Amino acid sequence: MAVYTPVNAEEIAAFIAGYDVGAVVSFKGIAEGVENTNYILQTSMNSYILTLYEKRVNPNDLPFFLGLMDHLVHKGVNCAAPVQDKSGNILQNLCGRPAALISFLPGLSINRPKNIHCHQLGRALAEMHEAAADFDLTRKNALSVNGWQELVTQCGDRADEAMEGLKDLLLEEMAYLKAHWPTGLPEGIIHADLFPDNVFFMGGELSGLIDYYFACNDILVYDLAICMNAWCFEGDGAFNVTKGNRLLRGYETVRPLSAQEKDALSILCRGAAFRFLLSRLYDWLNQVPGALVQVKEPAEYIAKLKFHQAVENPSEYGLI
Amino acid sequence: MAVYTPVNAEEIAAFIAGYDVGAVVSFKGIAEGVENTNYILQTSMNSYILTLYEKRVNPNDLPFFLGLMDHLVHKGVNCAAPVQDKSGNILQNLCGRPAALISFLPGLSINRPKNIHCHQLGRALAEMHEAAADFDLTRKNALSVNGWQELVTQCGDRADEAMEGLKDLLLEEMAYLKAHWPTGLPEGIIHADLFPDNVFFMGGELSGLIDYYFACNDILVYDLAICMNAWCFEGDGAFNVTKGNRLLRGYETVRPLSAQEKDALSILCRGAAFRFLLSRLYDWLNQVPGALVQVKEPAEYIAKLKFHQAVENPSEYGLI
Repeated sequence: MAVYTPVNAEEIAAFIAGYDVGAVVSFKGIAEGVENTNYILQTSMNSYILTLYEKRVNPNDLPFFLGLMDHLVHKGVNCAAPVQDKSGNILQNLCGRPAALISFLPGLSINRPKNIHCHQLGRALAEMHEAAADFDLTRKNALSVNGWQELVTQCGDRADEAMEGLKDLLLEEMAYLKAHWPTGLPEGIIHADLFPDNVFFMGGELSGLIDYYFACNDILVYDLAICMNAWCFEGDGAFNVTKGNRLLRGYETVRPLSAQEKDALSILCRGAAFRFLLSRLYDWLNQVPGALVQVKEPAEYIAKLKFHQAVENPSEYGLI
Repeated sequence: MAVYTPVNAEEIAAFIAGYDVGAVVSFKGIAEGVENTNYILQTSMNSYILTLYEKRVNPNDLPFFLGLMDHLVHKGVNCAAPVQDKSGNILQNLCGRPAALISFLPGLSINRPKNIHCHQLGRALAEMHEAAADFDLTRKNALSVNGWQELVTQCGDRADEAMEGLKDLLLEEMAYLKAHWPTGLPEGIIHADLFPDNVFFMGGELSGLIDYYFACNDILVYDLAICMNAWCFEGDGAFNVTKGNRLLRGYETVRPLSAQEKDALSILCRGAAFRFLLSRLYDWLNQVPGALVQVKEPAEYIAKLKFHQAVENPSEYGLI
């Protein structure tokens, strides 16, 4: 949520000279993206986002991320696309960082999604899954079951600093998820971070999905489980079954779920809540004083995890 | 340099409905403006800046600031202008803050100004002084001699935490400036904060001056003295007399300086260096842990003050 790497006027002019996008008219750092530096750049031709990839992004993953965005745009998905320079390259180096010029996606993210937004999200997610099916690169999900075990170990005894008894809760849940994590479900490329701030709407219609920097290969319905956590709980912590229903129905208008996928929804939602609980707890325990990133409280995802643990039937998510 | 007040999609849509500017297409918080929250807003018609005034701006000053910007634009000065809503109002309330929609000024600020930029700056500054001459509101400069005395008192003994001997330096300089501050020089509206980040260039030409939130009535040449401090020193701390000369020559193409004004240049430069030394020292001594603002080191302005103290003849600033 900050400009980590300043780029000055001379540097941006020299950088943009490598593209066929006209002359720079305006260039401002924006408070978007938790992990990278983003600028909004207006040229005599159009608006763009210039992203400089900071240290939490592995440069080796960038061909996957940028290639995926490019692939999705060519398949008709509304997402921002990397722009080619005059030599056809999309990945650059600017101010010592890997960098890419990205097309500008209009729209605004919605803080408090309504039922209709959940339906549109489900549909867009399924369209993205289908469109990505023939993308030829793959990326392992570093934040799946094995990755969680690492985070559990790193948080260790300190978990109880966030909440008494949290360490035990993490160990028990980790053991449960390891023992019950589903296999044999349809896999493919998932977005893996489709929170409301990564989904744009304009005039009441979903206008695009952004921020593919957690995208990876994993169980497709796990992506839906992440959205269930991020979109279908109310501010007071209650799960809104109507929103869950709309999310699932929107998804199934494009890609119907199998019985096995529906049965796995509860454990996948547990896993998704666990994944965000762990990463938030880790960031919370390892806050850097004076850092420009706002650390999110892990409590929200403890409560969500407990909700999913108590689910006995997938109909509680709105499945019909 | 941060988004202090979040505004969500529903709030911005409701706000913009009060204007004839089309529908909101995009809305992003930007890292511009040290004291206020700024968003870049794109509508179906144009780009705008939405500013929410945070607690360091006195709401009673806003009619002066916004009225001045409006006045300057109507006089042909390149600056951002507040946009009227459907009822003709420019000052609004949004999310509990005074707020204004401002036209979008193209251009980029330059980190390392060259001679030519200093010449253009001098010219634009004089044009602004002339254009503001018939603006009918006034605002006292809270950061002139009396205001400095208050900051010296507030920093007190703690000044030596920044540099040994700084307290004595401040007391001596304060006494000197009080005793020698010039009177009878032409006064008018000054920008009072015309650092390189508040001046935009495009295609090598100055495209506008922004951020009028320190503007006030004071000695006109004091504005030039602020620019002398902010634009004519090199990164290594050396004063660049060529840049000083270009700045003055640019200014004099529009508004020639009197002999009295030239003679006062040195003390006005001392005063300007003292003013920024004091405010930076105050902010440095009163840092809020975790605050999103980057506090600037006072050392830079201690060195600049010492340079001006040693000046014996205004020709050392490039006057010919």
